[in-house]
Amino acid sequence: MEAMATEEKIRIVKGGVTAPKGFKAAGLACGIKQSGRKDIAVVVSDKLANASAVFTTNKVAAAPIHISKKHLANGKAQAITINSGIANAYTGKQGNADAMRMAEITAQALGISPSDVIVGSTGVIGNLLPMQRIEEGIKKAVQELAYDGGQNAAEAIMTTDTFAKEFAISFKIDGHEVKIGGMAKGSGMIAPNMATMLAVVTTDATVSSEMLSGFLKSAVNKSFNSITVDGDTSTNDMVVIFANGESGVQIDASNSDLFQHALDTVCIELAKLIVRDGEGATKFIEVNVVGALTEPDAKKAAMAIANSNLVKTAFFGEDANWGRVVAAVGYSSAEVDPDVVDIHYGDVQLIGKGSILAYDNTKVKEVLKARDIKVTVNLNLGSGSARIWTCDFSYDYVKINAEYHT
Amino acid sequence: MEAMATEEKIRIVKGGVTAPKGFKAAGLACGIKQSGRKDIAVVVSDKLANASAVFTTNKVAAAPIHISKKHLANGKAQAITINSGIANAYTGKQGNADAMRMAEITAQALGISPSDVIVGSTGVIGNLLPMQRIEEGIKKAVQELAYDGGQNAAEAIMTTDTFAKEFAISFKIDGHEVKIGGMAKGSGMIAPNMATMLAVVTTDATVSSEMLSGFLKSAVNKSFNSITVDGDTSTNDMVVIFANGESGVQIDASNSDLFQHALDTVCIELAKLIVRDGEGATKFIEVNVVGALTEPDAKKAAMAIANSNLVKTAFFGEDANWGRVVAAVGYSSAEVDPDVVDIHYGDVQLIGKGSILAYDNTKVKEVLKARDIKVTVNLNLGSGSARIWTCDFSYDYVKINAEYHT
Repeated sequence: MEAMATEEKIRIVKGGVTAPKGFKAAGLACGIKQSGRKDIAVVVSDKLANASAVFTTNKVAAAPIHISKKHLANGKAQAITINSGIANAYTGKQGNADAMRMAEITAQALGISPSDVIVGSTGVIGNLLPMQRIEEGIKKAVQELAYDGGQNAAEAIMTTDTFAKEFAISFKIDGHEVKIGGMAKGSGMIAPNMATMLAVVTTDATVSSEMLSGFLKSAVNKSFNSITVDGDTSTNDMVVIFANGESGVQIDASNSDLFQHALDTVCIELAKLIVRDGEGATKFIEVNVVGALTEPDAKKAAMAIANSNLVKTAFFGEDANWGRVVAAVGYSSAEVDPDVVDIHYGDVQLIGKGSILAYDNTKVKEVLKARDIKVTVNLNLGSGSARIWTCDFSYDYVKINAEYHT
Repeated sequence: MEAMATEEKIRIVKGGVTAPKGFKAAGLACGIKQSGRKDIAVVVSDKLANASAVFTTNKVAAAPIHISKKHLANGKAQAITINSGIANAYTGKQGNADAMRMAEITAQALGISPSDVIVGSTGVIGNLLPMQRIEEGIKKAVQELAYDGGQNAAEAIMTTDTFAKEFAISFKIDGHEVKIGGMAKGSGMIAPNMATMLAVVTTDATVSSEMLSGFLKSAVNKSFNSITVDGDTSTNDMVVIFANGESGVQIDASNSDLFQHALDTVCIELAKLIVRDGEGATKFIEVNVVGALTEPDAKKAAMAIANSNLVKTAFFGEDANWGRVVAAVGYSSAEVDPDVVDIHYGDVQLIGKGSILAYDNTKVKEVLKARDIKVTVNLNLGSGSARIWTCDFSYDYVKINAEYHT
């Protein structure tokens, strides 16, 4: 009942990062991409905001990651500038200088401190940024900043993405409206040399830096860390959140559950959009593991299923190859007793207490023919559960990744 | 000099499991496979042998794995019976009874104890074995046992394999000839529902069960555990070794290094044959990681590179996408300092001390056009090294695994 009441309070609204009050954005082409597509984005809060981020765990982190970590150390930021086309990764000292210069150019154009500017890059690894073009691009973007510029920014951070990814919601706390909006890029798979996954989330609530950090970590765990396309982790992954307080609503212990739920909703929707745009994907697959001995066990088992090339090619072929699901659970390192496992595809149960059931094959075929497929594995050992979203594995994944040339 | 001297001593000889003295084998079709191809193999030592095995770590282990573990507990065995077509995995109590029955039928036909018979199965998960056909097949195979029957046995354990895999060597200890031979099945990828990887190794040396176990573990680590095609681990993986002493040569501390090297050679060759037969493979890739802080770090980094779909599709596309190699090392959890890494493709160095070199692109293209490609990553942090063999990732991998229906 509690959950239903919460759901009713949250309303989807138009837009992305500029949906909340007091955020402007711009996105345009400055010539990094040979295609002439948009490649530079700036998002700015009207005033200094509390801010936090979750960064890639890849030890070969790109230059903008290092600069952004420094600039977020005090829990505050006012703007973020992101370029697409070149990742500024594996670029040594020059790369660090270029990332810092992106912050300085943005700060100068906005009249704020460079240490309040976050920077992000996504694209090819190993190439230096064309700083002349980037400087011109940032200056022009700052001139074009608009309260409805979110979509331009969302388009400017795309690489192999086939559509721009935005989502925003509105909800009320004590009668006052609060909004959370976001944009993301990521083409599912997630190609490290196309710099994977970036997301920027904005809110007009007032949230302390400490709380914001906790909210974001929890939301990322349930969303961006619960999707997988090929298990690769990029050098440039970053999720940043800005809270500028323009709604006048303070988040505290009395409403933190609602805020967390709302933030989860935005991050989960953005994460799902990334999976739907997975390179070559023809199916959107939700893997639920329930009844695991522990939560980590549940996540390990769900990730093993979702990352198995054999499971993913079986779904592409629309084949009920539950043997591959069972085998993935078996090597996941999660505790499993094969004799008590239940497996459902959609509503159809295939395996009950470790035995193959006389299921209706026509119904299974129907489940597998759909665009969205839900797989549920009950380990019947405890109460640990995990949900992971992934896509299938098609000829086009190989095509996109084999034909992409450096 | 030591290594060279050893190499000269080892000579490749014809055959597989029946190359060593005192081993007979047979392989024939008993009707498990609808195709009518060979599907039952029996290998027998003239006398009770010392024996050991390495089994799958998959927690959903198949019935024959359980039975074989029991029968090898005393370190002795005389025969192994393997069927292909059905894995006898996820088959509950009936599956265990059927696996035990395979041992009993073999034992009765040979006039030995069932506890001296090892059993193996490979094929589809979840189906029960056609025991009537298997009984007839085993009885007929025992009648057909021959000292040159190794190839028939190697053919009878194939599933998606495109060729039978056999290898044997001969070497001398104190002027006396010793042989080690083996057969394997595995189509690289390694499809869990086609029950992955099985290998049987025989030798006519006299080796204690304890030493045999140590030799096999070490050899498997350098061979079958150093290949990867898609990172999946099957429910039926098993490598068994028999040492029957028919050569009259005793292995002890004075010659154990040579024996280990010889066994490594056989296991590595069989493992490489599995990779070469990888589903859809067009390239054979050797990944060397050197200069890692520790050995486990080296193996983690090499495995991350070898298992990356992005790296594997890049090789299929013959593109020098070293960014994907660097990114894989970065998320491998191995210690890495990006600023000191060297990367070679074949003899061409692309990255030196973390910087992109002005390498000759024509030479890199030549390296990538070849069937066999060697990638070397020097982390320059310590002396840990690891070598992993894998294959590329082609359209045909998706085709084979999506079109294979349960």
